[in-house]
Amino acid sequence: MLVGGMMVFSLPWAWPVLGHRTGEYNPDASFETGGFFALCASIVVSFLIGYCLYKYVGGTHHEKLFRKEAMAVVALSWVLATVLGAMPFYFSGTCRALSVRLLDGSHEVHIYDEKVEGALDQGEYKILQAIAEKGARGIPLADLVTSVGASAPGILEDLAKSSPDWEEVLIFPNEEEDAPADRVANFRIRPIRMSIVDCLFESQSGFSTTGATVIADLEDPYTVPMCILFWRSSTHFLGGLGIIVLFVAILGHGSAGKTLMRAEIPGPSKEGTQTRMQHTAWIFTAIYCVMNLVEAIILKIFGMSWFDGICHAFGTLATGGFSTWNASVKHFNSAPIDYTIIIFMVLAGMNFSLHYLVLIGRPGKMLADIEWRTYMWIIAIVTLLVVCFGMFHSNYEHLALVFRHGLFQVVSIMTTTGFATDDFDVWNSFGRAVLFLLMFIGGCAGSTGGGLKVIRHILFVKILRLEVEQSFHPTVVRPLRLGGEAVEGENLRKIILVYFALIAIIFSLSWLAVVTIEPDETWGTSLEHKLIDSASAVSATLNNIGPGLGIIGATQNYTNFSSLSKLLFMWLMMLGRLELFVVLVIFMPKFWKSR
Amino acid sequence: MLVGGMMVFSLPWAWPVLGHRTGEYNPDASFETGGFFALCASIVVSFLIGYCLYKYVGGTHHEKLFRKEAMAVVALSWVLATVLGAMPFYFSGTCRALSVRLLDGSHEVHIYDEKVEGALDQGEYKILQAIAEKGARGIPLADLVTSVGASAPGILEDLAKSSPDWEEVLIFPNEEEDAPADRVANFRIRPIRMSIVDCLFESQSGFSTTGATVIADLEDPYTVPMCILFWRSSTHFLGGLGIIVLFVAILGHGSAGKTLMRAEIPGPSKEGTQTRMQHTAWIFTAIYCVMNLVEAIILKIFGMSWFDGICHAFGTLATGGFSTWNASVKHFNSAPIDYTIIIFMVLAGMNFSLHYLVLIGRPGKMLADIEWRTYMWIIAIVTLLVVCFGMFHSNYEHLALVFRHGLFQVVSIMTTTGFATDDFDVWNSFGRAVLFLLMFIGGCAGSTGGGLKVIRHILFVKILRLEVEQSFHPTVVRPLRLGGEAVEGENLRKIILVYFALIAIIFSLSWLAVVTIEPDETWGTSLEHKLIDSASAVSATLNNIGPGLGIIGATQNYTNFSSLSKLLFMWLMMLGRLELFVVLVIFMPKFWKSR
Repeated sequence: MLVGGMMVFSLPWAWPVLGHRTGEYNPDASFETGGFFALCASIVVSFLIGYCLYKYVGGTHHEKLFRKEAMAVVALSWVLATVLGAMPFYFSGTCRALSVRLLDGSHEVHIYDEKVEGALDQGEYKILQAIAEKGARGIPLADLVTSVGASAPGILEDLAKSSPDWEEVLIFPNEEEDAPADRVANFRIRPIRMSIVDCLFESQSGFSTTGATVIADLEDPYTVPMCILFWRSSTHFLGGLGIIVLFVAILGHGSAGKTLMRAEIPGPSKEGTQTRMQHTAWIFTAIYCVMNLVEAIILKIFGMSWFDGICHAFGTLATGGFSTWNASVKHFNSAPIDYTIIIFMVLAGMNFSLHYLVLIGRPGKMLADIEWRTYMWIIAIVTLLVVCFGMFHSNYEHLALVFRHGLFQVVSIMTTTGFATDDFDVWNSFGRAVLFLLMFIGGCAGSTGGGLKVIRHILFVKILRLEVEQSFHPTVVRPLRLGGEAVEGENLRKIILVYFALIAIIFSLSWLAVVTIEPDETWGTSLEHKLIDSASAVSATLNNIGPGLGIIGATQNYTNFSSLSKLLFMWLMMLGRLELFVVLVIFMPKFWKSR
Repeated sequence: MLVGGMMVFSLPWAWPVLGHRTGEYNPDASFETGGFFALCASIVVSFLIGYCLYKYVGGTHHEKLFRKEAMAVVALSWVLATVLGAMPFYFSGTCRALSVRLLDGSHEVHIYDEKVEGALDQGEYKILQAIAEKGARGIPLADLVTSVGASAPGILEDLAKSSPDWEEVLIFPNEEEDAPADRVANFRIRPIRMSIVDCLFESQSGFSTTGATVIADLEDPYTVPMCILFWRSSTHFLGGLGIIVLFVAILGHGSAGKTLMRAEIPGPSKEGTQTRMQHTAWIFTAIYCVMNLVEAIILKIFGMSWFDGICHAFGTLATGGFSTWNASVKHFNSAPIDYTIIIFMVLAGMNFSLHYLVLIGRPGKMLADIEWRTYMWIIAIVTLLVVCFGMFHSNYEHLALVFRHGLFQVVSIMTTTGFATDDFDVWNSFGRAVLFLLMFIGGCAGSTGGGLKVIRHILFVKILRLEVEQSFHPTVVRPLRLGGEAVEGENLRKIILVYFALIAIIFSLSWLAVVTIEPDETWGTSLEHKLIDSASAVSATLNNIGPGLGIIGATQNYTNFSSLSKLLFMWLMMLGRLELFVVLVIFMPKFWKSR
């Protein structure tokens, strides 16, 4: 229902007067019929399913939920949301990448970002890449020569002379693949529509606030309608809202609530009774919505269009990271915008109860919070290290710029947002290794951030120190302390350790699976890249970050992975977002058998 | 004392009639004076230190050891053994790599395996590499042209014509670096003596049965005397003996013994009372020594020299992996030798009490042992997968060869030996990823193998399954079962989880440290290689394997790493070998303060 309701807000952006990116308004652009009706259809389906659920299942809703039922409800409603959220992408025929078909050869060539399937020589490849970079709109050969002149001058000019009949044909998604006979041309560009797996991936990535995308080219409204792009960012908003509110407010009662507290807000819970929790949840909703609004307004003031401002606010506060531009936040190249987003990313990665405490005039509580302090210290120290080690590829002239990009990237990865202002994939090894490990830290408990959460790491280190101490002082059992106070003992220790163990084992096995599933050819000769890229892809999805290293780097995307890997990544995103247990139990036969 | 005693056995190999490798006997070779006296000096020092310890500290030996004292004794005696074991390398001036000094340029060039420091063009590099491959003996230019003719024909012939005065000068380690004036030449080859850190690394690698080496060229008796090479393999024998016997027999009494059981033989202990343990320990010694002897004899029968046979037997049964040839076991390229080593590696990776049970005629106990069964299944399944996925780079014609190499490599990594018959670094990604993960499994408890041990993995998986189950059935607490019997509860769970957690955190932080310490330049442009190579180096030392991927691959070594990294690797080898706790506690201030 909520999903359907939210889709309504995506509809207006089908009108070009609203749906246009910063600096791109084109009054001649047409109304986005396909996107509009796809959204309408999705809304109808959502409400129908919502109505059915309410009527046939809703009866049990008011009873006290048991732990098992609660877990099943969370997991299944998450799956349902993903499916509903995928519909607009599928119905609208959104395209994820371009395919170029060479008619003089017999081979079809898929162009994603860096990859060409099929046997092409270097010259052909460069031309096709230039075409693909221009988007699906197609360009005359003369313009093509101009635009790729620098990269492959000789080849293109030779080609222009030898094959004067080369001309582009753009086949739109809805047209027949085999174009009518009058289209005599040597190559055809055909956008590849998102498959069902792609749509589900994009939807899951949005709801889990991961921000991993399979869409290689966001900037072409012919293949990705603006209203669909807005819906894509809206899934972040809904996901973030769901995380901080839904589980606490709607499902946060009875013994079920406690399970979900374990699944959703880890570590020692900070608030007490049920009513207080529900009350807090509504305050969280208000804080979350107001922060979205404030950020959108600030971004608008600093020069974004409303469309971009709102989408980026959604991406920031949900710690998602979907942008509306291929280059992510780097596109704007503006210090005020960067710093605005940095500040809101830091806010989004904080425990929302701290926002509340500051609002009711008790900022001291925030400053005393051990998790918040560790969180801020990690950001400060890692940024300092990254900047000091001179991690940047090019010799930036200004320290301010180095600092800005370093801070942005550290905050973006740490809070699991995944926006980028600099291609950190070309940083030196130290920078990349630090960012990789930072992925596993994540935001604070009770925030929209993913990862393992700061509080778990604090407890983890404390537990390990106590345990090592106990190995030589077996009789002395000391309690686990957090900010002076002793926190619950053995059981908490075990839960934290089990969580880390599960993450480690899931990470290792998923890495092996991706390495096995993906063909070596995608990476060409450098198979070390495959090992690192796969590891970062698993980490980036499991911790809900989005971009990783190599082929899924800051300027890249997930479009090159096979469908099987994409399904695995979807599962990892869901695992990470619902904090393992809820998702793991539904795969246990015992869970369904026993009562 | 034992170290000194064992050194005596290395002395005879200084005589060339004994100390020669398979197919290499040269009756004109001279007696190894340097190596012989270095060993003598080391023996004297060892006995002196042993005597002092016995006289001044030995008094407390017969009292019951407390847990803390026992831990300190283990850690410090390990450090002492490492220092004593490093002496022969240092005193004999053993060299780890070759350095080529070009006198026509002003730059000095270090040649290890694939790496050249300094500005050289491709042609110069190839020549120098050819020289280095020939060893430190030096060769006339004419021979050089012949030997590298295939790889760089034009360059060398041009060079031979244009610079007829190029001639090699070999400067021996003990000579002055700046050679007398009559040595007019364009380049000089100078072997680099092992630094103190190198010697300690090699010694630690031997005692911890890791098998990681810093010596790039083992095959030149001028730079690495045969008697020193024998001592190098003897450290494996001692290390292996120490692991299965020393901790159980000599230190295995009182509460101290229990700590060490925890530190040394993990999981549920299989034997009961103290006297029985000591009795078993002596049986273990016998089994271990006899197996060494048997393997050496079999290898001799299959064509090895006595020297090679004994050294490889030491390397196999200690699951060490030091070979006497640069190409490791691949050098022999013989199926009987390969299968002999495979069988003994498998035996070395088994719990030694199973050998005992088989000897006393109860093989049924072995077949029923859950750890042994899992161990054998993992070897079988992984070998099958590796072979089936067609993991080999070249198209081997015979399935038998593919199977032999696949099985050898899987067993070698799984048992943490580290011998190689095939360069698994050129396997496909699946093969490499599987071997990487296999490193963390390791041998069985109570074997000489390293890694996390199979039993820990069995318990780990069982614990995680129980814990996930408990998340939806919080009231049902089921005991941990192993082969039908319930094993001790909560505390064991915590210990296993803490062990995995410590391994994970040590691995991550060490990886970051190595990436930070090592200069990016070592890897040139492919920084992904750095990330993977560093990860595999950390894993290969922490789990006591030896070779990893990339620059420390099957045909490579650790000589390229900086001293700081080598110190870190030494620490990791010790950590892995003593199973974390003993080594970790000595770094805690509390350990030394309190009683």
